[in-house]
Amino acid sequence: MTVEIICVGTELLLGNIVNTNAAYLAEQCAGLGLSCYYQSVVGDNKARLTESVKTAVGRSDIILISGGLGPTQDDLTKETVAEALGIPLVTDENTRQRIARYFEKRGMEITDNNWKQAQVPEGCKVLENENGTAPGMILSVGGHHIVLMPGPPGELRPMFENHVRPYLEALEPGVIFSQTVKICGVSESKIETDIEDLLAGQDNPTIAPYARLGEVHLRVTAKAADEKEAKKLIKPVVRELKARFGGDVYSTDKDMTLEKSVVELLLAANLTITTAESCTGGMLASRLINVAGISEIYKSGYVTYSNKAKRHLLGVKKSTLTKYGAVSEKVAGEMARGAAMFAKADVAVAVSGIAGPDGGTKEKPVGLVCIACQVCGKLTVKEYLFSGDRAKVRESATACALTQLRRCLLEYCGTRTFGKDKE
Amino acid sequence: MTVEIICVGTELLLGNIVNTNAAYLAEQCAGLGLSCYYQSVVGDNKARLTESVKTAVGRSDIILISGGLGPTQDDLTKETVAEALGIPLVTDENTRQRIARYFEKRGMEITDNNWKQAQVPEGCKVLENENGTAPGMILSVGGHHIVLMPGPPGELRPMFENHVRPYLEALEPGVIFSQTVKICGVSESKIETDIEDLLAGQDNPTIAPYARLGEVHLRVTAKAADEKEAKKLIKPVVRELKARFGGDVYSTDKDMTLEKSVVELLLAANLTITTAESCTGGMLASRLINVAGISEIYKSGYVTYSNKAKRHLLGVKKSTLTKYGAVSEKVAGEMARGAAMFAKADVAVAVSGIAGPDGGTKEKPVGLVCIACQVCGKLTVKEYLFSGDRAKVRESATACALTQLRRCLLEYCGTRTFGKDKE
Repeated sequence: MTVEIICVGTELLLGNIVNTNAAYLAEQCAGLGLSCYYQSVVGDNKARLTESVKTAVGRSDIILISGGLGPTQDDLTKETVAEALGIPLVTDENTRQRIARYFEKRGMEITDNNWKQAQVPEGCKVLENENGTAPGMILSVGGHHIVLMPGPPGELRPMFENHVRPYLEALEPGVIFSQTVKICGVSESKIETDIEDLLAGQDNPTIAPYARLGEVHLRVTAKAADEKEAKKLIKPVVRELKARFGGDVYSTDKDMTLEKSVVELLLAANLTITTAESCTGGMLASRLINVAGISEIYKSGYVTYSNKAKRHLLGVKKSTLTKYGAVSEKVAGEMARGAAMFAKADVAVAVSGIAGPDGGTKEKPVGLVCIACQVCGKLTVKEYLFSGDRAKVRESATACALTQLRRCLLEYCGTRTFGKDKE
Repeated sequence: MTVEIICVGTELLLGNIVNTNAAYLAEQCAGLGLSCYYQSVVGDNKARLTESVKTAVGRSDIILISGGLGPTQDDLTKETVAEALGIPLVTDENTRQRIARYFEKRGMEITDNNWKQAQVPEGCKVLENENGTAPGMILSVGGHHIVLMPGPPGELRPMFENHVRPYLEALEPGVIFSQTVKICGVSESKIETDIEDLLAGQDNPTIAPYARLGEVHLRVTAKAADEKEAKKLIKPVVRELKARFGGDVYSTDKDMTLEKSVVELLLAANLTITTAESCTGGMLASRLINVAGISEIYKSGYVTYSNKAKRHLLGVKKSTLTKYGAVSEKVAGEMARGAAMFAKADVAVAVSGIAGPDGGTKEKPVGLVCIACQVCGKLTVKEYLFSGDRAKVRESATACALTQLRRCLLEYCGTRTFGKDKE
């Protein structure tokens, strides 16, 4: 079956916001094995929206429409679609009651235009919105399936996940199942070269590479009669990818992030951690602290931007700074050692680099970053050269520090038993 | 004149990448006073691209097409557009030579398919690509202007800026000029209410609000015979907006960020700064350190996630932690005082909050954040309640800390002379 995505909203036409809904819905559809040939954006305009809907119905089986379901006069997606398809609007009693409860709970007064949201095209399937007032709707007309969803991503995504996806899965016999192999610290081109043979002959399952900052995700997707069968098709491919990329594969779980995988390793090994940052200036700490539950193992960290701070807070030697410079493997190493000692942490990660735009020299150009990881006394220091502007260098250094830390932890854990208390 | 945007690329239809080109082009067109009614995305497919181009020519004056100009067989935008409009392709000698030089300079061999990029529709205007091999093209046919640009943003944006924008500006007499009034710490709905009268009757100049995290940008755009005239039209509106929002306007400069405006205030007043963060865990330091030149005034900062770290690194009293809890105005205040003292900084900002998902209680729910700013001995502490998930609460708290700091600095600077050395 073919699918088409229509996003409604003047703010998209004005370029006020980037169309992340289209990318999300497209990625979901690809994962479901649905072929998407067109995406379009129209404003909150009746004539142009009518034209777009009619064109879409003429060429696609499934039409996903987002936006324009709000309570104001500007929001006219539902009314326009219903009129274009010749379906009258009726009041949906469930939605009416839900809206009443929504406002009552928040102690807010219901204005007349809010009741507009309880109107739905006759005979449609109403999709509950757990995160807002506007319900979603699915209309089945002449073999076409038209899905209306609210525009805010925080409402659209859970609605798609909980209500639209199961509906679409049921349309065609068989299921689509995906698993993502997440790899860190290997370039996209290297990965594509390493799996050229797998990419060349692929049919079912397929492998699709997605580049992320400092990571590459390989999504393996299979289509089969049931989930069990699809998983069986995927299993050997995932196993092969894991075999080829070994320890660089940090997860095959869709909710896992690189920082979360690092935190889980630390928790499993019962290790506390601290950070000492110069050029990344808190970015590494911030990524780690985005993992809920980090308070068990992360107690304190240091932003040591000046040489003086490196000396006073971390005990870096003045002579080391003078002899090797702040951006050097020696200084990064002393930063990590000092941080571990002062924070009384088992593990310390230190970053020192030149983020630019100024401060670079021929010997030490902008983008040069030294990263040190100390894990229970064992220090590993590496030098990197990143490209891009100041923000990009800092983000790359942060991702790279997590990758380096992960490798050090794996090495450490390989020599120990997991989950045991440390002495 | 009306404009329509067509982005070509299978990676967009699969949701592999977000369509930032569409947002960029739409924002540029809005700035030029061109009305954009449609955006669409099609894959590298001849039949569907032909259909899209013909539809666009039937309803829009200017058609901006991005993507599909590369050297491979997949790239067929130029060939398809030329065929749809009945124009033959010819070799462009300048482009041919430029491609030869491009490869020579890089010591790379030219493969046959690279010469494909020197073919252009007869009679078109060729746009030089300073950042890649594929040239851009503008075709004028029957009063329509069809612009072809390469897909990579690093090639598309400079080409638009240097070649397409001047072409579009020349199409209609007069110029478009914009200035953005950047406001922090005031909600979008409050701002829209406060300028309802200005928004209602607007014609030339127009005011368009854009919501950002913790900020609202009001873009004022005027159309006039020349830039001087346009600036004259904008001036009183910008002055009126500044008058209405006073100190909450942090800039009208397009390259200014909130953190940069704070750093400039600190530099002007010759004040050093430090940070002490609990729930934001380095995010505030990281935003400040993204400003190049911060090393003058930011020497060190603290991530104090545990109570112990708050006591040992910042000198927060045990009794204060016990009596009021870590997330309290009292503790945030002691964190700021301690940070300023230990880092020997004139200014300190401290953040303590509950980012969730766990840790909330009825009295202290998830989203509760206390922010303390100490400026040369004067302490200001405030309590906030943010909504959203862990990441959102942390990002909101960081933006809010910058806003609160900015207000404290303005107050302090109001009582002093700028640029003077402190004693």
